[in-house]
Amino acid sequence: MAKDFEARARDRLEPAVYDYYAGGADDQVSVNDNPRAWQRVRLRPRVLRDVTAVDTTVTMLGATAAAPIGIAPTAAHELAHPDAECATARGAAAAGVPYVVSTLSTRSMEAIAEAASDAARWFQLYVRGDLDRARALVQRAEACGHQALVVTVDVPTLGLRRHEAMALNDRVGLPHMARPDDTGGDTYARHVALTFDDLHEIISWTSLPVLAKGVLRADDAAACVRAGVAGIIVSNHGGRQLDTTIDPPTALEEVAAAVGDATEIYVDGGIRRGTDVVKALALGAVGVFVGRPVIWGLVVDGADGVCAVLDELRTELERAMRLCGAATVADVTHDLVVGP
Amino acid sequence: MAKDFEARARDRLEPAVYDYYAGGADDQVSVNDNPRAWQRVRLRPRVLRDVTAVDTTVTMLGATAAAPIGIAPTAAHELAHPDAECATARGAAAAGVPYVVSTLSTRSMEAIAEAASDAARWFQLYVRGDLDRARALVQRAEACGHQALVVTVDVPTLGLRRHEAMALNDRVGLPHMARPDDTGGDTYARHVALTFDDLHEIISWTSLPVLAKGVLRADDAAACVRAGVAGIIVSNHGGRQLDTTIDPPTALEEVAAAVGDATEIYVDGGIRRGTDVVKALALGAVGVFVGRPVIWGLVVDGADGVCAVLDELRTELERAMRLCGAATVADVTHDLVVGP
Amino acid sequence: MAKDFEARARDRLEPAVYDYYAGGADDQVSVNDNPRAWQRVRLRPRVLRDVTAVDTTVTMLGATAAAPIGIAPTAAHELAHPDAECATARGAAAAGVPYVVSTLSTRSMEAIAEAASDAARWFQLYVRGDLDRARALVQRAEACGHQALVVTVDVPTLGLRRHEAMALNDRVGLPHMARPDDTGGDTYARHVALTFDDLHEIISWTSLPVLAKGVLRADDAAACVRAGVAGIIVSNHGGRQLDTTIDPPTALEEVAAAVGDATEIYVDGGIRRGTDVVKALALGAVGVFVGRPVIWGLVVDGADGVCAVLDELRTELERAMRLCGAATVADVTHDLVVGP
Amino acid sequence: MAKDFEARARDRLEPAVYDYYAGGADDQVSVNDNPRAWQRVRLRPRVLRDVTAVDTTVTMLGATAAAPIGIAPTAAHELAHPDAECATARGAAAAGVPYVVSTLSTRSMEAIAEAASDAARWFQLYVRGDLDRARALVQRAEACGHQALVVTVDVPTLGLRRHEAMALNDRVGLPHMARPDDTGGDTYARHVALTFDDLHEIISWTSLPVLAKGVLRADDAAACVRAGVAGIIVSNHGGRQLDTTIDPPTALEEVAAAVGDATEIYVDGGIRRGTDVVKALALGAVGVFVGRPVIWGLVVDGADGVCAVLDELRTELERAMRLCGAATVADVTHDLVVGP
Repeated sequence: MAKDFEARARDRLEPAVYDYYAGGADDQVSVNDNPRAWQRVRLRPRVLRDVTAVDTTVTMLGATAAAPIGIAPTAAHELAHPDAECATARGAAAAGVPYVVSTLSTRSMEAIAEAASDAARWFQLYVRGDLDRARALVQRAEACGHQALVVTVDVPTLGLRRHEAMALNDRVGLPHMARPDDTGGDTYARHVALTFDDLHEIISWTSLPVLAKGVLRADDAAACVRAGVAGIIVSNHGGRQLDTTIDPPTALEEVAAAVGDATEIYVDGGIRRGTDVVKALALGAVGVFVGRPVIWGLVVDGADGVCAVLDELRTELERAMRLCGAATVADVTHDLVVGP
Repeated sequence: MAKDFEARARDRLEPAVYDYYAGGADDQVSVNDNPRAWQRVRLRPRVLRDVTAVDTTVTMLGATAAAPIGIAPTAAHELAHPDAECATARGAAAAGVPYVVSTLSTRSMEAIAEAASDAARWFQLYVRGDLDRARALVQRAEACGHQALVVTVDVPTLGLRRHEAMALNDRVGLPHMARPDDTGGDTYARHVALTFDDLHEIISWTSLPVLAKGVLRADDAAACVRAGVAGIIVSNHGGRQLDTTIDPPTALEEVAAAVGDATEIYVDGGIRRGTDVVKALALGAVGVFVGRPVIWGLVVDGADGVCAVLDELRTELERAMRLCGAATVADVTHDLVVGP
Repeated sequence: MAKDFEARARDRLEPAVYDYYAGGADDQVSVNDNPRAWQRVRLRPRVLRDVTAVDTTVTMLGATAAAPIGIAPTAAHELAHPDAECATARGAAAAGVPYVVSTLSTRSMEAIAEAASDAARWFQLYVRGDLDRARALVQRAEACGHQALVVTVDVPTLGLRRHEAMALNDRVGLPHMARPDDTGGDTYARHVALTFDDLHEIISWTSLPVLAKGVLRADDAAACVRAGVAGIIVSNHGGRQLDTTIDPPTALEEVAAAVGDATEIYVDGGIRRGTDVVKALALGAVGVFVGRPVIWGLVVDGADGVCAVLDELRTELERAMRLCGAATVADVTHDLVVGP
Repeated sequence: MAKDFEARARDRLEPAVYDYYAGGADDQVSVNDNPRAWQRVRLRPRVLRDVTAVDTTVTMLGATAAAPIGIAPTAAHELAHPDAECATARGAAAAGVPYVVSTLSTRSMEAIAEAASDAARWFQLYVRGDLDRARALVQRAEACGHQALVVTVDVPTLGLRRHEAMALNDRVGLPHMARPDDTGGDTYARHVALTFDDLHEIISWTSLPVLAKGVLRADDAAACVRAGVAGIIVSNHGGRQLDTTIDPPTALEEVAAAVGDATEIYVDGGIRRGTDVVKALALGAVGVFVGRPVIWGLVVDGADGVCAVLDELRTELERAMRLCGAATVADVTHDLVVGP
């Protein structure tokens, strides 16, 4: 079904836009490997447990979600659907799961908030140009009801991507971005190479819980915890930044083993099936984020498509939990998997 | 030859029916991997043993069979051949091996018993709707001469399968199934999510030996033994329930090492060659069950086709045992294999 | 080049004959894997050794050969070339390496001896029908100048092979075979399932050194040594008997580690390149045997083709030894390889 | 991009010349595996480090280079471009990285020096015919300003290569080669099989630092150090000499662990991406050398193409370092990689 959405979306999109969403960095090794990495993790299902009622609800950062699933931040939804991020937010609200709004959204965060005031929204922060501009974004995000701040830490510079020759900037507006300036090759202000000190400072700006997105190592995760994060999103950026990294389940297992008791661990990259979600939980994640599948749903049917993709994944998760003998997310323990 | 039967059956069946039998769950990972998993187990044959006479007979649950091979329970044989499960039973009788009649048979268990009174029949139990209906089935099964009861424990709900859009229920009758009721999306009563307590209770209903089918873990196998089973069928349901599980030989080795001394261990899933049977025995199985290959035989030539497939597998087993220096099934010891 | 010979031979042969030589048992797993297994063994070449002169000569069973290479026994060379085994023997003589004449040759061993009296000939023994007939063959083999006896121990029965529908027996004569009798499905007398006692007895018949061909395990190799063999040929019969065995380099390493000090270890199966020969020597073999490549040479150019294939392999071996820093076969030590 | 250069070069070259550069030895296993071996090494990037400024400069043999990258010695550049090695040298100078001039160049080392006096040039030495001729080459190399001598130690004889039927010698002149003589099959003097004593003697001829190129083992590397080398280039000769060797990253890790403290370790073979360079540094290399990609640049655009390929690789390295949290090459430590 997820594949059906992708196929239908691909049919509708111009190739450059499809490639923009689907592609990865360099030789496409990680983008192609991410889903396979989850397949390589094998399940050891339990039987004969009472799974008459399976409950997929979960508490993430203190709030309840319908499932341990959220929408990963992705850019420029207007390229996918005319209702853009407003549709995405409504789809997330309908599915009862959080949506991480990207700094690179094509609608302002306030417009998104207004379109789906009942959605659990987290704001993803890119720091481009300088920290002051970023601080203003954080204050706006807090003011318009976001529940968390996600600081992307794996983009000190953009990865080398195919397919981005198209002039994205000329096609859509990015209201949270600084105006083009004269700093050089990038028409928008450059990415700032953040440090742990910067992360610490960003955390000081806001009462929102702050997550660091893009961590792949235990030592970095521990340093993030020391900097004061409320959570970590293990991620190789969907294979769009550094190619040939360790795969998400491998990194998740390492990070969760190191700091899973100290903070909430999330993961994204290659999650396509309910069984993948079970595996992520078993390896120590509180929840997962999905990016491209949501885009395909958005392309196919706007907010309804987004909700359909999320509902399908939640339904698959419920089935997979039942088939694994797990009635609640707490029952999804490490012994359910072998590998990665 | 087994592949010849499949090719010929595929030619004869409408695609939806072929897909119904051949397909697996989700992304088809496990259904495709099952046969490969047996290939990955490598043989370390012995030479210069006295294998002039090779004896493939085996005692399963106290009864002698011509080979450590049985017919796994599969649904709706009328879709494969007009003589349906009656033909399957006659084929099993002719081959001298047990046949596990499915709850989802298209002929009543009594009709099957009458058609092949000399067949070693085991009855596979699905509990749908409620336990009382199941108890009635068990009593009927015992009354009409089944030698064992096989309780499927890996279907608290159906796996997500491609190709089942076809309205199976409308095409054939399933006499052991409760009539359609008003419980919702399923036109038949829903699967009951059994527990170890339920298994214990089912065992109390009957004097027949009871096997639990669908176990993949040592701890679950041990709990089944504590519940009173006479045997365990290690199975990932032919890849039709939970996709991306550990593979059958891996699970078999774990389960047999844990409880092989306490109960009889069987395995199904991906067994296609006599060498696969040798590998299963070496890893601790008392016998194996085959599903899809029997269906292909049934499609091609009814009872004779079923018998031909089984005879061929038994002949291959005899050859493989001889080439491994094993004159009896007791000679098939763990040192004959490396892996999985 | 070896591949060139195969391609040219394939062009010349009728498909059934090509398949007869090229095919393996069951699902063709081992026949296809054998060459790959040697590729998986990786070389750790030494540099800056004095390899101005590289000497590939070797002593096998007390006799010197131009290279640690011999012709494995293969059947029915008349199907490959009208000069049949006489041409093969002349090719071996020209190349200076031993030729293992098959019991299933289409020329009598005496005719072959006369055609190439200067060839180092070993006689391969199948025991079919009864031991007395075999004893007569052994006596003839000794009488007409063979230097060794190779007892095939992995054919208590034939493997299941595709492509042998063709009535080989009707096409060519097999002068060493007992006349067709009335023992059943085989038009020739059936294979005898030899035991270690039989091997011991066969050894007692002759003053020739006796090798056991078809051993894949250390314990069997040790038992062969106790029975009095002068050597062991590690072999999975080119993948034509039992499919999915452990691969030749893996078995070779195990056998050589166990009894390499007590007897001469040889190997066949999948050897196609000089690097493969180096790997076999590094893993403990005194020499290797090649089967199918010699057939292709025979098809293409008779005795000259046989010699060309062998010379090419010897030349490749010399180059590989030089590139590995090994001036003599004694310099080819285990540290030159990683794996299998 | 590197792939773009290869595609464009392939379009321009006659197939035999493309094959001459692109091909490897025997079955092409190593030539195909080399790039994949680097992909198999996985990155464990660090985040939140100060990578605002990334410095790719490095000291190699006491001299500064713009990046830890050099041009591996490759033969006969006139086949690639009419300006031949003079263009290559100018490209290297423009990119600020060293160029290892091959003994098999089609321009004299003095002409190359004159064409690019500002290039960091190292001279690669083949010893063919006898040591005296080699000594004369070394003296010329020192006289015309080379900064190092690279002694190739893995060519006691040529590997078996496809595609070299073309008469290279008749197409271009090789000014450093001895005139054809009467020593046999090679129209030029044969390769000398060098020994560690020879290496020691060669080192005594010159005040230049000497590197041994073609080492794959720790023991050989240690012996090279004892012989007095200033560095070692771990190499399987781009898969053109001995096929199926251990792969470059595996050998690099072994060699660097053994003698990385005692001498400078370099590596070549399969380096195609900036991430590959990071991996090589993490595994202990001071720098890498690239061969075929430089040829493709030379074919496409002469000196400018060479410089473009090198600049692109340096830019990719800078990006990969930044994405790995490494501001300098000293920050690229072993913990950044898993595997090989």
